[in-house]
Amino acid sequence: MKRFIRPNIESLLAYKVKEIPCKVKLDANESPYGFKDGPKVLKSIETNRYPDPEAKTLKKLISRYFAVKPENILQGNGSDELIYYLVTTFGGPVLYPIPTFSMYGIITQAIGEKRIEIPLDEEFDLDLEKILKAIKMQKPKLIFLSSPNNPTGNCFSSERMLRIIESTSSLSIVVVDEAYQPFASDKGFMPLLKDFENLVIMRTLSKIGLAGLRVGFLIADRKIINEVNKVRLPFNLNSISQALAVEAMKNRNVLKSYIKSIISDRERLFNEMRKIKGIKPYPSEANFILFKTENPDRIYQGLLKKGVLIRNMKGVVDGCLRVTVGKPGENRIFLNALKDII
Amino acid sequence: MKRFIRPNIESLLAYKVKEIPCKVKLDANESPYGFKDGPKVLKSIETNRYPDPEAKTLKKLISRYFAVKPENILQGNGSDELIYYLVTTFGGPVLYPIPTFSMYGIITQAIGEKRIEIPLDEEFDLDLEKILKAIKMQKPKLIFLSSPNNPTGNCFSSERMLRIIESTSSLSIVVVDEAYQPFASDKGFMPLLKDFENLVIMRTLSKIGLAGLRVGFLIADRKIINEVNKVRLPFNLNSISQALAVEAMKNRNVLKSYIKSIISDRERLFNEMRKIKGIKPYPSEANFILFKTENPDRIYQGLLKKGVLIRNMKGVVDGCLRVTVGKPGENRIFLNALKDII
Repeated sequence: MKRFIRPNIESLLAYKVKEIPCKVKLDANESPYGFKDGPKVLKSIETNRYPDPEAKTLKKLISRYFAVKPENILQGNGSDELIYYLVTTFGGPVLYPIPTFSMYGIITQAIGEKRIEIPLDEEFDLDLEKILKAIKMQKPKLIFLSSPNNPTGNCFSSERMLRIIESTSSLSIVVVDEAYQPFASDKGFMPLLKDFENLVIMRTLSKIGLAGLRVGFLIADRKIINEVNKVRLPFNLNSISQALAVEAMKNRNVLKSYIKSIISDRERLFNEMRKIKGIKPYPSEANFILFKTENPDRIYQGLLKKGVLIRNMKGVVDGCLRVTVGKPGENRIFLNALKDII
Repeated sequence: MKRFIRPNIESLLAYKVKEIPCKVKLDANESPYGFKDGPKVLKSIETNRYPDPEAKTLKKLISRYFAVKPENILQGNGSDELIYYLVTTFGGPVLYPIPTFSMYGIITQAIGEKRIEIPLDEEFDLDLEKILKAIKMQKPKLIFLSSPNNPTGNCFSSERMLRIIESTSSLSIVVVDEAYQPFASDKGFMPLLKDFENLVIMRTLSKIGLAGLRVGFLIADRKIINEVNKVRLPFNLNSISQALAVEAMKNRNVLKSYIKSIISDRERLFNEMRKIKGIKPYPSEANFILFKTENPDRIYQGLLKKGVLIRNMKGVVDGCLRVTVGKPGENRIFLNALKDII
């Protein structure tokens, strides 16, 4: 088989999503709240017809919501696909801090481009000096900054992000991945789009109740959108996801109320976790909380035995575990189980 | 913007799907029959959860249907995405006959690999001599053979295909795209999988009533599947498409009866078209008919004025138009309009 495949693929490992049975699932940064109007919406869909390749209705609603033009939006089969398209369009090297969302690195490797990984500083913030140096020396074509960052949960300092965007304005595309921005206290980088031709904002519906649909989108200067659109598969977003996303955007007050609940439940969860001796939760602007402990494996396994699945960050942020904010009852079960184990 | 993008992208044009209002839509090789059980199926789906990254239930049903193992199947967000993954995994040059399905060339160009295009012979069959020569001289890594071929409608000679597969067994992956195979009289190339490590069969649900879902799959040796799976995005197939495809596979007798209708309606349509002076329909093993005429633009526009949309093949097969087999009433409207115009 070796003789057939590209060398960069040979050394690649398939991305494994472990399926672990559990009663309380708090490992994948999903929303605990789903969308119920599906059956109603589906009645009007002709499954035998190809989807709208431009996702016009959905883009119109998104454009109104973010006060941008539909021409500034590109739809993806989840953010993952958009990362693929960005690397295909702009190439590498691709720079990102670590730890961060793993798909930046995995996709860059799959496409065969070079990765530049710069460790975060001790506050989980961007190491500006090292990043600016790497930009100067290695001239990355693409930079991914996830803010709030997964798995650390914090927003990066806006000053540092701005410095990076400014310093690369004639050199690199900077993608600010705002997957978790709906849970953050600031407004994100959308307002800066008008000032920077090289800035791309990435958003997703996956964290706010619609992970099953796979709907992500880029918002950027029209010239960027036009280029990335060239490598987009014409029917990348299926009809049903389009229709359900449209319906969800029409009912965005429901989505917003869920987000509000998750934010206040996150604060409650954080305060409770702070009281537990032997663990150190990090402040979060996302829908999950990273926490440090002396014996992460024991706690992870202990929780699992009690039916609570969270994420073990071994190898990513050593000594840490990550718990997604669930419904209040789920958070309570998690907290009680955690106290029992400790 | 130029300074940011890869040179092969700059010269690329975005794939445009023209949206043309019409009453009778016979341009896109869609099935006229859709799937009605969507609303029932959707009730059980948690939109907030990520989809099953392995599409286990769907793969199990497909594996039973084709008498292969689930490990021999890879699921895609439509065949388009699988072509992307194949080119990403194996690289180029990529060889295919022309005219054929346009995405082989478009995707190869987007990824920046070399294309080798070999014109079909006068019977729309593979030009074996030229293809074997190109294989020898240019050593393609990937070969795409769509059989039945779009837009010509014929199956390629199996002897010629077999010669190509045999002659490349230690050199190239040969992908037989069987998108239209359900409408053909032969059994396709699935039975040959056990004999050739370099053979990949590509199938889709798009032509048999489920184009809106975007579900395609590869069937091949496990070693090939494992490699392509490395570049697959973990959540490439959304939950709802998975669930509806499962339901459709469970009701495959309904799908089969639709296919049977389309085949007999295609024969009826072909026989009627043969009687019309001034056009020459080509025999088809697919769900569409290619036909030649002296004034294709006039006929295309004339049909459109009467609300009937078909496909003008200008620049692909000059002098030709392509009509999808619709419901009997739609085919009748098309035939009457065609006769009126001629």
